[in-house]
Amino acid sequence: MKKIITAAEIKEYDRFLRMHFCNCLTGFKSPLLVGTTSESGNENLAIFSNVFHIGADPSTIGMIARPTTIPRDTVANISETKIYTLNHIPLADYEKGHLTSAKYPEEISEFEALNLKAEYIEGFGAPFYADAPLKIGLSLSSITPIKENDTILIIGKVELVEVEEKNLMVTGHLDFSGLRTVASTGLDTYYSTKFIDRLPYAKYRK
Amino acid sequence: MKKIITAAEIKEYDRFLRMHFCNCLTGFKSPLLVGTTSESGNENLAIFSNVFHIGADPSTIGMIARPTTIPRDTVANISETKIYTLNHIPLADYEKGHLTSAKYPEEISEFEALNLKAEYIEGFGAPFYADAPLKIGLSLSSITPIKENDTILIIGKVELVEVEEKNLMVTGHLDFSGLRTVASTGLDTYYSTKFIDRLPYAKYRK
Repeated sequence: MKKIITAAEIKEYDRFLRMHFCNCLTGFKSPLLVGTTSESGNENLAIFSNVFHIGADPSTIGMIARPTTIPRDTVANISETKIYTLNHIPLADYEKGHLTSAKYPEEISEFEALNLKAEYIEGFGAPFYADAPLKIGLSLSSITPIKENDTILIIGKVELVEVEEKNLMVTGHLDFSGLRTVASTGLDTYYSTKFIDRLPYAKYRK
Repeated sequence: MKKIITAAEIKEYDRFLRMHFCNCLTGFKSPLLVGTTSESGNENLAIFSNVFHIGADPSTIGMIARPTTIPRDTVANISETKIYTLNHIPLADYEKGHLTSAKYPEEISEFEALNLKAEYIEGFGAPFYADAPLKIGLSLSSITPIKENDTILIIGKVELVEVEEKNLMVTGHLDFSGLRTVASTGLDTYYSTKFIDRLPYAKYRK
């Protein structure tokens, strides 16, 4: 039985119901751990799941951050230091990854609290998650407020990528079957994935 | 053996290698079919894979479209008619979904060319893909150029959602195991998914 839900009905949903429903609409994504440090050197690691490709030349990545009406360490740190890291989450670590979304006391880093090892790559000042099978170091390009709801679009330029050589294909593709990273929907639901197919560039034929 | 790839190396990559590499960096996503009509009534269906949650109140969704330096039917249609649909792709239809990215002659709609049935929902003027297990009708909220590379951020307000009642959970979550939609990475690689876990809201405990 098909159900149609209108904007007026969504508006009337209880806050948590609406939050889960709306966050589910866009489907699958890769939740990523964003690594930053404050100007005073405190390390921070936080899960973000609305991260997307902007362009290849230069290589740029966008992400949506929640409103800064309450303190948001990640956004403050990126604004201050102009660098951050994106770390794909191994299947085995999805629970720890999820727990980075809790509110920790200021003096406690999520790396320590959750026993997630921080790692630095020479020449880059923001911390990576050591066990991430795909690590991306970015420099801040722009921060743009989204007028619809005070969320923030953060765009970064890819400065470096670390990946196992065997998972980087000669075509430039990354082999996510080999990377074994977790996928998610909404704010709390995690999935493993199975490769089906890689298709050729689509062309019209009469 | 871990490999570090720098921005300078990405810049030197062959165009197609760079395109595949950069499009893979953000990991899993749900490729969605965007349904529109032109002012003259021609239906259009095109695959977009950088679609993301913006907010729940009001329910808003963002997507990135490529530069309009060459004709892009979808963006032109959305600009003209101010409405569009997002349609999740059933696992069984991933090849047809992919083929909507080919360049068809102006007089041929992707719905017809690929035998994907168009469907209208009463009171909403843009076409849905009839077999999509999750359909979203949106009104245009804003179109913003991304200064980094002339792509375009399109933000829409959710006007209606159609889903099988059994796949809408009492908590507001959508059950993607039941929806059986396809996931993708990059521009051409498709995956099925398997539910692992749904986790409670994360709280810090001493």
